[in-house]
Amino acid sequence: MRVLHHLWLSPFCRKVRVVLHEKGLAFDMQVEPVWERRVEFLSLNPAGDVPVLVEGDGTTLSGSDAICEFLDEVTPEPPLIGRQPRERAEVRRLVEWFDRKFNAEVTERLVGEKMMKRFLGIGEPDSQAVRAGHINIHHHLEYIGYLMERRSWLAGDTLTLADIAAGAHLSTVDYLGDVPWTDYEGAKDWYARLKSRPSFRPLLADRIPGAPPPKAYADLDF
Amino acid sequence: MRVLHHLWLSPFCRKVRVVLHEKGLAFDMQVEPVWERRVEFLSLNPAGDVPVLVEGDGTTLSGSDAICEFLDEVTPEPPLIGRQPRERAEVRRLVEWFDRKFNAEVTERLVGEKMMKRFLGIGEPDSQAVRAGHINIHHHLEYIGYLMERRSWLAGDTLTLADIAAGAHLSTVDYLGDVPWTDYEGAKDWYARLKSRPSFRPLLADRIPGAPPPKAYADLDF
Repeated sequence: MRVLHHLWLSPFCRKVRVVLHEKGLAFDMQVEPVWERRVEFLSLNPAGDVPVLVEGDGTTLSGSDAICEFLDEVTPEPPLIGRQPRERAEVRRLVEWFDRKFNAEVTERLVGEKMMKRFLGIGEPDSQAVRAGHINIHHHLEYIGYLMERRSWLAGDTLTLADIAAGAHLSTVDYLGDVPWTDYEGAKDWYARLKSRPSFRPLLADRIPGAPPPKAYADLDF
Repeated sequence: MRVLHHLWLSPFCRKVRVVLHEKGLAFDMQVEPVWERRVEFLSLNPAGDVPVLVEGDGTTLSGSDAICEFLDEVTPEPPLIGRQPRERAEVRRLVEWFDRKFNAEVTERLVGEKMMKRFLGIGEPDSQAVRAGHINIHHHLEYIGYLMERRSWLAGDTLTLADIAAGAHLSTVDYLGDVPWTDYEGAKDWYARLKSRPSFRPLLADRIPGAPPPKAYADLDF
């Protein structure tokens, strides 16, 4: 059985979990305490981070882009990166938007500061970073709303890796109750559709011991 | 003619420049002062960053992954991401290694602190970050050496996007004279081969006004 080595609130791991579900691929999950830098784990991925996917035949993949592109190549249906080069460039542009820009401007400043520092025992959240995260998220919700006025899903007519990446990041921030959905109808409607997909449900069942999410986190009518 | 909107010391722009050359695609370059957040430029890329590639037919691409994958799809020869899914996953794993890990641990701490802050007029380099960058680079040079004991190029038998991404980052650090090549024969031999490629030569001719590189930067026998 294929095994995904992961961490609960990593948006990059969540992205891979949703892709596996959308492709109909069964997998087991194993939490990896990356901060322990275990030798066995470093032999799977010398970068020392998650996600790492070990396929049934032993093929070991790391890097969330590498994993998602691989899965889309070996299991082409349903296509999650589009079919034509231009569509594919638009999907990847938006994946980068969320995995780099949103990640640096929002996820790391909220989830990173409030939750990860606590897990790692490396001190208190930096209040200036947290404040910036709360400000920055508005711009991104607005951008999702802008796209939703023009398209059914972020990159076009169908669900793609762009929606999955965006949803993965937003779901981790939503776990903290830090997404101001009420001000952004377009983004909220889009996220409601994402939440109701079977592939997304397992994320909504995640519970970190000692840090439960607010009720709205798993609520489809939030 | 296709136009690449770029910044001189951006490793992500350098990556695209080398890919365009390797593919034999002609292009003009235009420097974009991203910090001015020009409306015309934001209409090309709402993320506001470079690289942005505008194709001859007006197709506008942004995000360095999106651009490089697009170019490899529409101009397949020579293949820069490999041919089989597993090879492709290995290339992309290493691209992520350099574009995320090396970028955060080294490029941003050296080039970002020493050069970009100066351009942007946002203060003095953070000496703690610079110190960390100088320490972190050793680990990466060692890893390149480790791969070079096993392969001809970083991801396998042929030059790929992994080498181009790694070379793009290292070349910006090398512009500052901050790569301790002498301690790392394997990495140095690999970089010497990269430097001697016609696609890499234009990077070695870059000169930032008021901040010239050390002589060894452009020297093929460094």
